[in-house]
Amino acid sequence: MKHVALRADERIDDLIHGGRRLIQSTTAPRFAIDAVLLADFCILRAGERVLDMGTGTAVLPLLLSAKQLDCCFVGLELMPQMADMARRSVDLNDLGKRIGIVEGDIAAAAQLFGRASFDVVLSNPPYFKVGSGRLNDNALYAAARSELYCPLAVLLDSAEQVLKPGGRLFLVHRAVRTAELIGQLEQRQLHVQRLRMVQPFAEQPANLLLLEARKGGRGDTLVLPPLLVYAQQGCYSREMERIYGGRTLSGGDTNW
Amino acid sequence: MKHVALRADERIDDLIHGGRRLIQSTTAPRFAIDAVLLADFCILRAGERVLDMGTGTAVLPLLLSAKQLDCCFVGLELMPQMADMARRSVDLNDLGKRIGIVEGDIAAAAQLFGRASFDVVLSNPPYFKVGSGRLNDNALYAAARSELYCPLAVLLDSAEQVLKPGGRLFLVHRAVRTAELIGQLEQRQLHVQRLRMVQPFAEQPANLLLLEARKGGRGDTLVLPPLLVYAQQGCYSREMERIYGGRTLSGGDTNW
Repeated sequence: MKHVALRADERIDDLIHGGRRLIQSTTAPRFAIDAVLLADFCILRAGERVLDMGTGTAVLPLLLSAKQLDCCFVGLELMPQMADMARRSVDLNDLGKRIGIVEGDIAAAAQLFGRASFDVVLSNPPYFKVGSGRLNDNALYAAARSELYCPLAVLLDSAEQVLKPGGRLFLVHRAVRTAELIGQLEQRQLHVQRLRMVQPFAEQPANLLLLEARKGGRGDTLVLPPLLVYAQQGCYSREMERIYGGRTLSGGDTNW
Repeated sequence: MKHVALRADERIDDLIHGGRRLIQSTTAPRFAIDAVLLADFCILRAGERVLDMGTGTAVLPLLLSAKQLDCCFVGLELMPQMADMARRSVDLNDLGKRIGIVEGDIAAAAQLFGRASFDVVLSNPPYFKVGSGRLNDNALYAAARSELYCPLAVLLDSAEQVLKPGGRLFLVHRAVRTAELIGQLEQRQLHVQRLRMVQPFAEQPANLLLLEARKGGRGDTLVLPPLLVYAQQGCYSREMERIYGGRTLSGGDTNW
């Protein structure tokens, strides 16, 4: 474990998986349950090249680098403060050879990396359209939560461009946007192959969805049973306990 | 209850709901669980005019006429033998004033009934693309199960045409076609407002989906918790018991 400099508002959190550690700030977006669920949902194959669009703290590459040991990751992040924090987290875990952090715009991904340059794209994108709800005063939170810099259509265009033929896109999003999201994916020949809803409780509507789409894919969609977060009030389901590695991750943002 | 003539291969089955009775033939498609689930999923409002595309035995109008007492239904059916059986079932239940059976092609619905002529369209369509699996030798089964006469795109075009602005489309389909179906709906501005997957058991992938789409609709999609058919092997869930009215419907086709 390397030594890295921390700012006064920063701390180091334990990601449990693979002993990964993550720098997070009390004044910037921290990862939440959705990132952990997406990392668990992703199936990567040996040697794949993976782009995380809007990587934030780089929590997804850090978690996935522990799950699939021979994949390489690029985390693309627009906000300089987040990219800087992400870079120091990569250093902290001594993963500079496997994870690169690039400061830049998702819309420019094809110019930055070239068309058909990734086997896998993943994203935990901003969930809210501009105009739906008040924008957060903190510019970093606003960028992470609202489609200020990256509307869904731009993200999907960009993902389609940088994916190789047959490449896969993994997304987490709000369940209320299921139809819009699938419609936009299908329009771009990003065919949903695997879909899983996330419900807080067994008897409640879904609040998140996880999906895997394939560029130029066709055929059946596997709709998995929903992932239930809680078995009962205040008590995680067995599956969530498995995903969280038997204990609650420190530093996670519960405000989702 | 009127007296109607039956052919040698026909019998009268009890639909339980509203005391409805249904003529079915041992040599023609009988209704299955999916029709019962779709009828339960449909929410109709007072006085609405409803078209059932590919009505078969007219099981959907018969079930729904018991649920919403002041709606009028048209059952459109291509196969003369099915349309004849459906007409006699309507007579048997003395519902000629509320349910009309029209023999004709789904593709011609807008010519038959006029554009923007229905508040609601519903369909339990053929599930299989031509070329996926062997065609049934029985022409009636083949038409009911395979998209021989009505590919999904034709059904959706036709539904879009006959629906009034803001009108709703209710569908049941195979879960493996979820992404394709939602993609095609969104492409026609038929926006999915409510979505529910059907799973045989809690831990198995979905095999059916139920959805409500609105013509020209926008905004959120409500993704309901999945409907579980069985609580355990050989034992219906409580919800299925409610839907089936506390006992198993006679005459249902279990081969789905």
